[in-house]
Amino acid sequence: MILPMPKYRVGLIGCGNIGTAFAELLTERRQAISAMTGIDLELARIAVKDPAKKRADFLPLSLFVEDPIEVASAPDIDIIVELVGGVDPAREVLLTAIGSGKPVVTANKELIARHGPELFEAAQSNQVDVFFEAAAVAAVPILRPLRESFAGEDVVRIMGIINGTTNYMLTRMSDEGISYDEALSLAQQYGYAEPDPSADVEGTDAASKLAILASLAFKRAVPAEAVQRDGIEGLDQEDFQLAARFGYEIKLLAVAKAIRNPATGEPEIGAQVFPALVEKTHPLASVRDTYNAVAVSGAAAGELMFIGHGAGRAPTASAILGDVIATADHLQRDSYRSVPVGPRATPYPIDDLTHAFYVRMHVADEPGVLSDVSGVLARHGVSIRLVNQEGLRDTQKSATVVFITYQAAERAMREAMEELRSHNSVVEVGRVLRILET
Amino acid sequence: MILPMPKYRVGLIGCGNIGTAFAELLTERRQAISAMTGIDLELARIAVKDPAKKRADFLPLSLFVEDPIEVASAPDIDIIVELVGGVDPAREVLLTAIGSGKPVVTANKELIARHGPELFEAAQSNQVDVFFEAAAVAAVPILRPLRESFAGEDVVRIMGIINGTTNYMLTRMSDEGISYDEALSLAQQYGYAEPDPSADVEGTDAASKLAILASLAFKRAVPAEAVQRDGIEGLDQEDFQLAARFGYEIKLLAVAKAIRNPATGEPEIGAQVFPALVEKTHPLASVRDTYNAVAVSGAAAGELMFIGHGAGRAPTASAILGDVIATADHLQRDSYRSVPVGPRATPYPIDDLTHAFYVRMHVADEPGVLSDVSGVLARHGVSIRLVNQEGLRDTQKSATVVFITYQAAERAMREAMEELRSHNSVVEVGRVLRILET
Repeated sequence: MILPMPKYRVGLIGCGNIGTAFAELLTERRQAISAMTGIDLELARIAVKDPAKKRADFLPLSLFVEDPIEVASAPDIDIIVELVGGVDPAREVLLTAIGSGKPVVTANKELIARHGPELFEAAQSNQVDVFFEAAAVAAVPILRPLRESFAGEDVVRIMGIINGTTNYMLTRMSDEGISYDEALSLAQQYGYAEPDPSADVEGTDAASKLAILASLAFKRAVPAEAVQRDGIEGLDQEDFQLAARFGYEIKLLAVAKAIRNPATGEPEIGAQVFPALVEKTHPLASVRDTYNAVAVSGAAAGELMFIGHGAGRAPTASAILGDVIATADHLQRDSYRSVPVGPRATPYPIDDLTHAFYVRMHVADEPGVLSDVSGVLARHGVSIRLVNQEGLRDTQKSATVVFITYQAAERAMREAMEELRSHNSVVEVGRVLRILET
Repeated sequence: MILPMPKYRVGLIGCGNIGTAFAELLTERRQAISAMTGIDLELARIAVKDPAKKRADFLPLSLFVEDPIEVASAPDIDIIVELVGGVDPAREVLLTAIGSGKPVVTANKELIARHGPELFEAAQSNQVDVFFEAAAVAAVPILRPLRESFAGEDVVRIMGIINGTTNYMLTRMSDEGISYDEALSLAQQYGYAEPDPSADVEGTDAASKLAILASLAFKRAVPAEAVQRDGIEGLDQEDFQLAARFGYEIKLLAVAKAIRNPATGEPEIGAQVFPALVEKTHPLASVRDTYNAVAVSGAAAGELMFIGHGAGRAPTASAILGDVIATADHLQRDSYRSVPVGPRATPYPIDDLTHAFYVRMHVADEPGVLSDVSGVLARHGVSIRLVNQEGLRDTQKSATVVFITYQAAERAMREAMEELRSHNSVVEVGRVLRILET
């Protein structure tokens, strides 16, 4: 007896840039997938705002409908792929699909970062999959290992370069010695940065992704609001040159750590996004242009790193298709996989997080200044590991001094900088950059 | 109604270094795992050669038995973890377990590389899992993404640094300028290399791992015998210095590519292990010491890279535990996941594979030599991209010349070198190293 090949009908919500790429990849790979997995995936319906609009040739008009909720609840649709973005109506669409027993796949970073726990819980009670590999770091297959391979692992830190736009800008500033503004207009010219680049350069995009990654890594919901952000705006070319001289690259890092509260014994999560000095020999330093990378430290597994395209049509479509195949495989076996994210994590106080810091200052070029400045740092409990004094910077007789500190608490460093900003001998305090501990 | 928590009883075959580490990790994490996944994993029995031998304190003697086949077929054991290594009796143990309907987890590289397809088929007909994340690149969770996230992806190349011992040696030779012999005895001193280091330095270990990785990446069985090997023995310190001057590191790479046969349209797999020049700015160049890395290129996903510990007790135990949890999760849902490896891949002829090459020669320091040597290369269709001539090497009036070629076929390069070895003006032909194309 030959069993008929199981066929699953996919309902796609949204058909913009990524939606079209996914539809194209699914159409193109349909035969190869069924040859390999024994599952036939049919793109059965697409919900868009304007169903009458002319689309790519491989997408017949008959596929298009207007109402996403109708598709999400349609009895002849088996899997919902949501690529419309934003919270409304995506949240309602996914809850409807889940409520009618359909597994869902989404690339919606904002939705998962803000409403992940609600969706995970609904999926659990309806015993269906929620997959969202493309919602964080696109084609880098990091979420599945975190959900599955690391189920038994005690993760202590997850960090990475998870915004391609800013990594492109920082690579250009480092390689070509151009200014922040020049790097930004280059990124806009190539379509890597939006006309309003704030979500990228202010670190909010990275914070949303870090929230998703940290939730899966620590198995506790980490909301995006708990992530402290420090963007790359106003980074100075001078800092790149000084960083290079000391053997560092400057990268926008997203870092989340589990720190055990000594009183309760419970792990608390400290999460930050900031531009940091990364040693040139560290693998993260060689992650260039629009590439992304995520490093995970497990108590048993040690340090792991995943590098790949963080965005882009084809890589994102590939990640979505991988999720759709996984969920179809589960459907075939009448199975699903719950998202192992428990209740909300307790945030570790950002002020108590420690780092080594780099700071560049312009100080009056006169005797005793170094001792003054070091004195202020010392009073706040910040110890100096390295001082570098440059010659005269301009005709106003100020000198550039760079300090690299030992580990110090965020609060101590911030208070020391506040005091130094109003100090008589200090002309200007430049950007304070954290240094990646290795 | 409160459902009782499902409990699965694990039978462990082998309790050496890795087996003990796994038993310890499972014992230590048991409560955390059940809190997170709702599954209780009990280490129920351990088969070892000498059950009476005193073991670690957390392993009561009552757990130990002698006959692995009995454990594999015991009706009160749910999951078999095979950590005994080698083909016999591991193969029979796993086939017995699978035949009695038990999912199996193994870290046995040799067994999977040699008998993978047989095990996968047996598991498929018995509808049970075979997981072997720890069999290639230990704690780097690469196999699961290859099996699942990449199910819909057209993989064109998989490559990496997949032997920690040789990577440690090459890092030392590059950093400290020591000789091959010194690096080997250092590796032996730290326990990274065996007293007989041949499996590592000749590339057979890397070839087995590459066979496993390539089989999953290309979804076709690639046997270890199909992998051409070139080891690191006799690498000369001079090559490291020259490589550094041209901006390269030397790394032992394992590379498998899918090349479409123009006649049949079918992809054929070319697989090799060789020491190669890797540009210092390439992420693989910064994979140091005993770290491993695997890079996957997909038609849609682009280039992805995974870095982590390739070996070691704790990372390996962590990978095994991840597999055990995944298979327990499947058991709970009465599900399993087949290994998507089809029939044997057609090997692409190694002779037709192309690379850019680096070769160092000592030639007579006399007029016309460069033109002679270039002439030989040209006659074999090898074009030169760069020549570098060093001053006098010794009192015998020979000079060191380094050639870097454009892409050329393996056969052409080999035949050109054969001719040059017997050429009048050539004193000695050093190691030919391939250059990683980026």
